[in-house]
Amino acid sequence: MCEANAYLIENGEQKLIMEAVDTIEPDGDGVMLLSIFGEQKFLKAHIHSLALVEHNVFLKPDNRRSSS
Amino acid sequence: MCEANAYLIENGEQKLIMEAVDTIEPDGDGVMLLSIFGEQKFLKAHIHSLALVEHNVFLKPDNRRSSS
Repeated sequence: MCEANAYLIENGEQKLIMEAVDTIEPDGDGVMLLSIFGEQKFLKAHIHSLALVEHNVFLKPDNRRSSS
Repeated sequence: MCEANAYLIENGEQKLIMEAVDTIEPDGDGVMLLSIFGEQKFLKAHIHSLALVEHNVFLKPDNRRSSS
């Protein structure tokens, strides 16, 4: 298994949002996180960076969002 | 180890960009990919979605880019 921990970077701090994340998909004006346990979480954020060997995924909040 | 394959989604197709990706970081108007073998690649793209259990990372090209 190759899941990761998802952190939200806000005000220079990393907040753990979800452990054992499998998929992250764009959803409306944010992203939907899904863990290997079936847990779901929606965040108004985008994927900022990855450090996969360390099992870390970093998200950043979207306050405004372009229509891409 | 928990590296992934990075694919670029363009015109509805998935193109393998790099195998065994460890980190992806924002860099200028794109992202820098780094593999576990030390290979580096810059892409004018952003991280679109993740499927970590399947070891897949999907990127989408950035033709225009907001200043975030």
